Amino acid sequence: MPPKRIALFPGSFDPFTKGHEDIVLRGRLLFDEVVIGIGQNSQKQRYVSIEQMTDCINKTFAAYDNVRVETFKGLTAVFAETIGANYLLRGLRNTTDFEYENSIAQINRNVNKNLDTVFLITAPELAYISSSVVRDIHKYGKSVSEYLPYEL
Amino acid sequence: MPPKRIALFPGSFDPFTKGHEDIVLRGRLLFDEVVIGIGQNSQKQRYVSIEQMTDCINKTFAAYDNVRVETFKGLTAVFAETIGANYLLRGLRNTTDFEYENSIAQINRNVNKNLDTVFLITAPELAYISSSVVRDIHKYGKSVSEYLPYEL
Amino acid sequence: MPPKRIALFPGSFDPFTKGHEDIVLRGRLLFDEVVIGIGQNSQKQRYVSIEQMTDCINKTFAAYDNVRVETFKGLTAVFAETIGANYLLRGLRNTTDFEYENSIAQINRNVNKNLDTVFLITAPELAYISSSVVRDIHKYGKSVSEYLPYEL
Amino acid sequence: MPPKRIALFPGSFDPFTKGHEDIVLRGRLLFDEVVIGIGQNSQKQRYVSIEQMTDCINKTFAAYDNVRVETFKGLTAVFAETIGANYLLRGLRNTTDFEYENSIAQINRNVNKNLDTVFLITAPELAYISSSVVRDIHKYGKSVSEYLPYEL
Amino acid sequence: MPPKRIALFPGSFDPFTKGHEDIVLRGRLLFDEVVIGIGQNSQKQRYVSIEQMTDCINKTFAAYDNVRVETFKGLTAVFAETIGANYLLRGLRNTTDFEYENSIAQINRNVNKNLDTVFLITAPELAYISSSVVRDIHKYGKSVSEYLPYEL
Amino acid sequence: MPPKRIALFPGSFDPFTKGHEDIVLRGRLLFDEVVIGIGQNSQKQRYVSIEQMTDCINKTFAAYDNVRVETFKGLTAVFAETIGANYLLRGLRNTTDFEYENSIAQINRNVNKNLDTVFLITAPELAYISSSVVRDIHKYGKSVSEYLPYEL
Repeated sequence: MPPKRIALFPGSFDPFTKGHEDIVLRGRLLFDEVVIGIGQNSQKQRYVSIEQMTDCINKTFAAYDNVRVETFKGLTAVFAETIGANYLLRGLRNTTDFEYENSIAQINRNVNKNLDTVFLITAPELAYISSSVVRDIHKYGKSVSEYLPYEL
Repeated sequence: MPPKRIALFPGSFDPFTKGHEDIVLRGRLLFDEVVIGIGQNSQKQRYVSIEQMTDCINKTFAAYDNVRVETFKGLTAVFAETIGANYLLRGLRNTTDFEYENSIAQINRNVNKNLDTVFLITAPELAYISSSVVRDIHKYGKSVSEYLPYEL
Repeated sequence: MPPKRIALFPGSFDPFTKGHEDIVLRGRLLFDEVVIGIGQNSQKQRYVSIEQMTDCINKTFAAYDNVRVETFKGLTAVFAETIGANYLLRGLRNTTDFEYENSIAQINRNVNKNLDTVFLITAPELAYISSSVVRDIHKYGKSVSEYLPYEL
Repeated sequence: MPPKRIALFPGSFDPFTKGHEDIVLRGRLLFDEVVIGIGQNSQKQRYVSIEQMTDCINKTFAAYDNVRVETFKGLTAVFAETIGANYLLRGLRNTTDFEYENSIAQINRNVNKNLDTVFLITAPELAYISSSVVRDIHKYGKSVSEYLPYEL
Repeated sequence: MPPKRIALFPGSFDPFTKGHEDIVLRGRLLFDEVVIGIGQNSQKQRYVSIEQMTDCINKTFAAYDNVRVETFKGLTAVFAETIGANYLLRGLRNTTDFEYENSIAQINRNVNKNLDTVFLITAPELAYISSSVVRDIHKYGKSVSEYLPYEL
Repeated sequence: MPPKRIALFPGSFDPFTKGHEDIVLRGRLLFDEVVIGIGQNSQKQRYVSIEQMTDCINKTFAAYDNVRVETFKGLTAVFAETIGANYLLRGLRNTTDFEYENSIAQINRNVNKNLDTVFLITAPELAYISSSVVRDIHKYGKSVSEYLPYEL
């Protein structure tokens, strides 16, 4: 029997969007376990707190045994090792994403030889959603409910 | 227990390169089974015959139980269904690949709702290898052994 | 009063897809008139004949007074002049489209100084549809009705 | 008679360049009215004040009845509604612009269902001009007059 | 004293355009010698014959001692070796060019270890010119004199 | 005899990586002299000080007569003039680099008519290395020695 395939889905998730949800729902079929890892970056002020975000994501995937949320500091590749993840799971929305992810994937493999990165392309009707745009819309008091899988 | 994860890695493989090998070797760890599917296109004259290519690929992965080769005609998504594959496995080398694959992945999912496409980024030191360039070099009598995992 | 704004929407439309329809429906609000121009290229064998395609498009836009179909040979910029079009209307699906269209738009302006090109980005849920993929699917006997605004 | 076509051309215009001018001059032929909207972002310090920029742009288009300048805060799509604009006008210089604009255009349409985005490709001899580069050159005391349609 | 720097500028040049001329004129300042190499491809029918093209290019650079034209068959990297070129000179117009050239440059270096590829970005006001578009315009009887440095 | 060809290789080099080294080693064969110019930007806090970086780069190229390091403030094109450089040397890693460099190259030529920009594509096995990622890895205490041509 092959070793368990555990994927880390890392991000700042500020906030977690329906685009992210699409990747997790498809990833949980591909992997035995998906860990959503919220990276803490002390230099960036968050719009939605890590605590609130953790709650929202937990509720979103409450029905799924093999999805859970963690927070982490430091290098993604090191955190992956800590939790026994042998894969990083990433969504691609467009070519700008691709070039960034390409570079990061090689580096992560260098840091942790047993860590491969797997990509899913975000469903096209969700690919235009980005956390930064959702923050902008919410900040100005417009509804963001169609971009998020939970209520903010 | 989850259903077996079977991936179809489709292509014309004319010829199969070390870039393709990289994707299969990583894919066989991610999936329970990888089927390399050589698509037959009656309108395109091949440089290496399907029979010879099948032999070469079979030898390349002889040591691996969960990799095998098949040939097919028609739509990739339909062939995937025939062999019970629930995933397509594809390598990405650059942004041109990405845009093409993005479009194909959505269509394949439309044709076969249970078929998701998983992408691995080709190792950078192999990403510049393309079958068409290998054909050109071979045609003019130069060695292509550093681009292929077998002797041509 | 400004001169009438007439847009030519040129293409081979083999076949015309829901992605094309999206551009025309939005274009007919932006322009006073939209002419769908099916370019005839004697060197390329068509999958759907020009006559059948003209009929299908005519039916699609039967309800709209300011949309009509024409066929043409030769340079797009010259045909635009013939029908009094001062604009070319083009859909963009991705960055590959963009680079191609960028080059063509400059050339067309050189050939016909009064001809500007206007771009709309195809709705994301339709952007993955291409005529060549539709032909492939149809050729193998699968339904293409969800990609076309008419029955083929 | 169709409703008046009013386009909002939004940006920070810090400063407004000949590339922006190219888009406005072509846009004023396409639309009945073009409103240049200078977005105010309290978190970003401007290089050229909004007052000075408004003056410079006003002088640039003094000869054109159907071009005017406004300043706004908040969401672009909301401001468009306020001034009765049914179109956003945007210039594309390269593929990086395209991917950003693609995402923004979908969001704006979601916020305001009647707001479509129209793109013109910046003339190639102006496409390399960016506001940030102009600021850099001006800051170090070199002439920027060939990049701007007015004196700074 | 360093060895002479000789650059091969390879292409099909069907026809040679002002964009190509821009690269040669800048390349002849960078290199001690520039050899324009017209690749012969027996499978592609040319629009302008190699003989006529050679004449036209020779006239274009008659004033320059360190520019000459050659024709070749087979691999570019092998021809470079034959004429003692240690560099390939290539023009980049856009990102599509970049990805193609990236792949080719690595392969050429593999075939010929002493062959490096040097890129110049085509002047923006010429970057939209492509040989295939020039052929199209000429075929339909319109003037192409503004795209070519000689009369066709 | 042609004038000496002197290239400025500008950057913030925070830190200088093996990707940068690749460009300099190939550039010193193409040019009579390569000057590595560390740009000082008072608004950005450096991770590695300019003094330390200068030392590290000097040691890296100690064996090469025609490579040296300088620091500069202000516009790159102006500094190039000061040191008599007639070329800028730049590495391209991917299409995102290309579009940025394209814009900068045109501007630099505008500021200094005699300054052309020459591009080499970074070797693929080094193209994923970026200074910002190296800083991240070093900050978290992991080894970066495989990305740098010297010890940090």
